[in-house]
Amino acid sequence: MFATVMHGPGDVRYERVDEPKLLKPTDAIIKLSATCICGSDLWPYRGLQPQDGPAAMGHEYCGVVVEVGSEVRSLKPGQFVVGSFCLSDNTCPHCQFGFQSSCAQREFMTGAQAPYARVPLAEGTLVATEEMPDAAMIPHMLAVSDVLGTGWYGAVAANVREGGTVVVVGDGAVGLMGVMAAQQMGAGRIIAMSRHESRQKLAREFGATDIVAARGEDGIVEIMDLTDGIGAESVIEAVGMEQSMTQAIGVCRPGGSIGYVGVPHGVSFDGQQLFFRQQRMLGGPAPVRRFLPDLMDRVLQGKIAPGKVFDQSLPLEQVAEGYKAMDERRAIKTMLTVEA
Amino acid sequence: MFATVMHGPGDVRYERVDEPKLLKPTDAIIKLSATCICGSDLWPYRGLQPQDGPAAMGHEYCGVVVEVGSEVRSLKPGQFVVGSFCLSDNTCPHCQFGFQSSCAQREFMTGAQAPYARVPLAEGTLVATEEMPDAAMIPHMLAVSDVLGTGWYGAVAANVREGGTVVVVGDGAVGLMGVMAAQQMGAGRIIAMSRHESRQKLAREFGATDIVAARGEDGIVEIMDLTDGIGAESVIEAVGMEQSMTQAIGVCRPGGSIGYVGVPHGVSFDGQQLFFRQQRMLGGPAPVRRFLPDLMDRVLQGKIAPGKVFDQSLPLEQVAEGYKAMDERRAIKTMLTVEA
Repeated sequence: MFATVMHGPGDVRYERVDEPKLLKPTDAIIKLSATCICGSDLWPYRGLQPQDGPAAMGHEYCGVVVEVGSEVRSLKPGQFVVGSFCLSDNTCPHCQFGFQSSCAQREFMTGAQAPYARVPLAEGTLVATEEMPDAAMIPHMLAVSDVLGTGWYGAVAANVREGGTVVVVGDGAVGLMGVMAAQQMGAGRIIAMSRHESRQKLAREFGATDIVAARGEDGIVEIMDLTDGIGAESVIEAVGMEQSMTQAIGVCRPGGSIGYVGVPHGVSFDGQQLFFRQQRMLGGPAPVRRFLPDLMDRVLQGKIAPGKVFDQSLPLEQVAEGYKAMDERRAIKTMLTVEA
Repeated sequence: MFATVMHGPGDVRYERVDEPKLLKPTDAIIKLSATCICGSDLWPYRGLQPQDGPAAMGHEYCGVVVEVGSEVRSLKPGQFVVGSFCLSDNTCPHCQFGFQSSCAQREFMTGAQAPYARVPLAEGTLVATEEMPDAAMIPHMLAVSDVLGTGWYGAVAANVREGGTVVVVGDGAVGLMGVMAAQQMGAGRIIAMSRHESRQKLAREFGATDIVAARGEDGIVEIMDLTDGIGAESVIEAVGMEQSMTQAIGVCRPGGSIGYVGVPHGVSFDGQQLFFRQQRMLGGPAPVRRFLPDLMDRVLQGKIAPGKVFDQSLPLEQVAEGYKAMDERRAIKTMLTVEA
């Protein structure tokens, strides 16, 4: 088959690779219904994260089970499934504690920007629907796999409460999903920081009540003004850069919480400064598995339409153009369609 | 009167100073029933924290109201009061949110290692008892003012839960009070890290179920063994040094919480490392005011005896010896008695 391989910075190819096979009795093979490109795929694409040789790309996925290993008991070929980008057994103490992204057997999904993929730890990782969803549901189900799940975790980590004030730093796909999560959790006020008109529009559609276009010190001042000098009790940081983290810390009230879900690159914290700010901080790769059943239900019941975050859709074979569009910020997030 | 003044590192004098006066209508003057030396007083004493000229020392206190300013309505001369080392109006949004240590008008108490002291923001800061407590209660009431309040906040920040596993890093007075707090909150297992026999004994008396004497990597390994390789869901860091923070991070499970209440000195965090550890972190000067009524009740009802943390008691005029004893770790915490 053909699939997506990154050979180096800026060099993504759709090329011939071996078809995935069951390697362990806990594996499953799925046929992708759709897949997509993640903001985190851009780190190596931009040369900001070292890479050892060619890499099979793609970790967001939903699709139909084709084959299962001998130890996979609850899944059957023909079922539609969504999984997390973090593969987990869902039985170890960390999984039981709701932190499947720190599973004792944790692996990270790869090779999902392809027509078929191997999913290790399938029984713990995949959640099946009762029926085959309509084609129109596919983008929304796909979004649950990482981008919504990560935004959701950001909101949970930021302790978003009913009626509370939330600031979302970052208007990328994860930030926009953080807005949606905060809205679903009943936040009273959701301030999205964004300077791009199309992203502002989506943020509003997802539930943002205020938009702040200013950045840096100006952005902090504006949000402090909006919150009567108090700051927000919940801040979702969805970028992972020094500037965005400074922004998040600058707008969070004492006793408030910062959920940071952008993988930090070149970010460090001064202990004493953090101490006196008195902000609760929790980050990490999202334990999406914890949220999957709930989020899939919300999608199937039509409560949320997270697939709207895909503002570009390309056939899988045009994946290289998808990376380019996201890198150049022409696209917020690119869905890759797979032939049925 | 005579009171305690630090002139520089190692130079604490009990010398003649002006008697405190009401400077603002929100002030009160109290006669100290007892006072004490704080671990944080040792930072400047050891030259590890810069100091501008001579400083009136002391921020832990309880005593009897002598005089109140014209805007102090709920307190009267003759009442016994306990206050926090953080002075707060208890009405601003941060106070209302339970973070009085970030009060919009916050000041830090000074000059309490003296027979009399001025307490700014008295109405917001001081909590009075209904009756004059017995002399035997004084050490316990004094402990509430900072050392217990800070240990308590550490346990709250570490999300100590009934039945949960707690590690306390640091066997100083605050760490020992963290043990007591965890015990009061119903923790199932309390692992105190301590290598000093007298402190181990107190830790056990306060509720520690396990003692780990090893430090560094060995200490981490031992605690991971004790917790079946999982780590603790709550960790109280009560030191503020790089090594103790590394210890705390090393024994906290993913999804667990670290409450850090030792003021960090020379501590920094790598963003990406913190991210992947997935630990909730909250520090800061303790909002003791939030806990005062509850903690004073527990003392008066005989549920806790936090004054046991004072293993040395000296008359106030021997304050210099008290500093020396704590600096040399001959004393865990020194109470200073004031003539009635």
